[in-house]
Amino acid sequence: MKALEWMGNSLRILDQTRLPVEINYQLATTYEDVAKAIETMAVRGAPAIGSAAAYGYALGALQYSGEFEGVHDHMEQVKNRLAETRPTAVNLFWALRRMEDRLREQHGETDLAKIRQALLDEAETIAEDDRRVNRLIGEHGNPIVSEEANILTHCNAGSLATVEYGTALGVIRAAHDTGKKVHVYADETRPFLQGARLTTLELMNDKIPVTLIADNMAGFLMQQGKIDLVIVGADRIAANGDTANKIGTYSLAVLAQAHGIPFYVAAPTSTIDLKVPSGQDIPIEERNPQEMREVFGVQVAPADVPVYNPAFDVTPSKLITGIITEKGIVSSPYSVNLLKMMVRS
Amino acid sequence: MKALEWMGNSLRILDQTRLPVEINYQLATTYEDVAKAIETMAVRGAPAIGSAAAYGYALGALQYSGEFEGVHDHMEQVKNRLAETRPTAVNLFWALRRMEDRLREQHGETDLAKIRQALLDEAETIAEDDRRVNRLIGEHGNPIVSEEANILTHCNAGSLATVEYGTALGVIRAAHDTGKKVHVYADETRPFLQGARLTTLELMNDKIPVTLIADNMAGFLMQQGKIDLVIVGADRIAANGDTANKIGTYSLAVLAQAHGIPFYVAAPTSTIDLKVPSGQDIPIEERNPQEMREVFGVQVAPADVPVYNPAFDVTPSKLITGIITEKGIVSSPYSVNLLKMMVRS
Repeated sequence: MKALEWMGNSLRILDQTRLPVEINYQLATTYEDVAKAIETMAVRGAPAIGSAAAYGYALGALQYSGEFEGVHDHMEQVKNRLAETRPTAVNLFWALRRMEDRLREQHGETDLAKIRQALLDEAETIAEDDRRVNRLIGEHGNPIVSEEANILTHCNAGSLATVEYGTALGVIRAAHDTGKKVHVYADETRPFLQGARLTTLELMNDKIPVTLIADNMAGFLMQQGKIDLVIVGADRIAANGDTANKIGTYSLAVLAQAHGIPFYVAAPTSTIDLKVPSGQDIPIEERNPQEMREVFGVQVAPADVPVYNPAFDVTPSKLITGIITEKGIVSSPYSVNLLKMMVRS
Repeated sequence: MKALEWMGNSLRILDQTRLPVEINYQLATTYEDVAKAIETMAVRGAPAIGSAAAYGYALGALQYSGEFEGVHDHMEQVKNRLAETRPTAVNLFWALRRMEDRLREQHGETDLAKIRQALLDEAETIAEDDRRVNRLIGEHGNPIVSEEANILTHCNAGSLATVEYGTALGVIRAAHDTGKKVHVYADETRPFLQGARLTTLELMNDKIPVTLIADNMAGFLMQQGKIDLVIVGADRIAANGDTANKIGTYSLAVLAQAHGIPFYVAAPTSTIDLKVPSGQDIPIEERNPQEMREVFGVQVAPADVPVYNPAFDVTPSKLITGIITEKGIVSSPYSVNLLKMMVRS
């Protein structure tokens, strides 16, 4: 089950909104299809969003049928539409920037077919990079996992959130694959239930032992000594290490610290945004109140109840034991060490 | 909307499992009906469970049609059935003990009608006491609420969890009724969604401003300075002040302490169990895994995913700013102060 698959002239997107109950695919043939798939969270997870946006950009070029002179304006429109879909995960903007850079490299090229091929190549490279990077995150993260470990994770930072393998779940997969006895507690992750629906599914498919819990049970598990390690993904990491991730991550980090449990973030370096000094500067998306009032279309609260529905929160870097990337593990002082890592080739 | 109402020879129970979408009532005519209503959480909330069990006991006497000699054995059976419904909330056992004491006082009485009447009177007194006690909890708790306050609550400790008025929500009602500007953040409270379904409904009916949040958003709200005060109910309070309450309460208490936010428990003294030295000795009910895999009968996780579903957790008294009861507010040292209060008439 892959989040994304390029089909030659369209992008096949696994619709994650109804998993695990319904397995539906969407065939995106336009950049607008891709933008809608990102907005509705048919495709979600920072690295998968980045890769989807890159393919969406390439589709924007494929579908262009106007005069050559208009292509750059058109591509600007494509970029703007894709960029406005979700504000928090930085991988979206990172991927679009890579695509724009590639377009700029075609300066002087007048054969539209060649430009299209170059953009498609770049989208393929971004996807291929993500596969490779996730494997490396798994390798680098594996040493932090003991021979036997109960690991808590939040949301879904797995293969479904990436092109393949996963970030937080990539570390867990690597530990499992090297024979360690790992058992995962998966936070169900309200309101979108990515933990209940996606993380459990992925781990069960891979025969990695998993137990589903409600988000509000994590503290009680820690109190009972049932959690050895917390690993989560990230949507944007500021220059000082502050990390935006799925709503509820901050509460887990506070709880982990109160119980002396290591708290790790696993993410590709494309999630690191050195232009943003601290977490305060990361925009936090608020989503439709209806996501809280309904579960799978079934009403679970008064129809008109006021709702606060932030999709992410920010965990200050002082609560983070380490950030696991494809280039290795970074720890405090983050401002220095993240910068050092990013300039290292 | 009342959780319980005595109808002369049956107990009308509001079925809370489908609120706010469906408003159904069950007419319990036997103690078995009441036991089932408690088990299925048609009626829930420690004080409401206690009161329901008392009426169930009275119904057990009303429905008895055997020889007089057998009545005590029968009532023993009634008590055992009601006592086995839910293990954590102590009000259930407290109410059944009051009923048994009343039965014992009838020693020598041979008129079954008079015994029945005495038991019914006792059940009515327990309900009446609960109404009065909740008002007093509101009065005693009111001074801890500022003129303007954003209050976080978990689960439902309102009129639906009691005979009337509520414990945690009783304090909030009292503050609102005396003109304070209170705004409530209601944790939705997975998996049973008492916050989303019941607390919001009660507060909206009373025109008290309320905003629904997912349980995992509480920490983020605290981080942003949006919470002034946390008030929750209780299912059992140990002699040292450790408090069992709905799962997720402990996490909130840790988060409140990390953010310097006062954390109060509101409960009648019938929730205090001096026979239990500390929280470690409170039995924690685990409920059906299906409650986590389905929401209102709709599947939201793999059908066979392993689940951990504790219904309660225990908050150590060191995290509790004060316990608000009908006799006043108790604070640290709890072992001394709870005992003092309990022996005071």
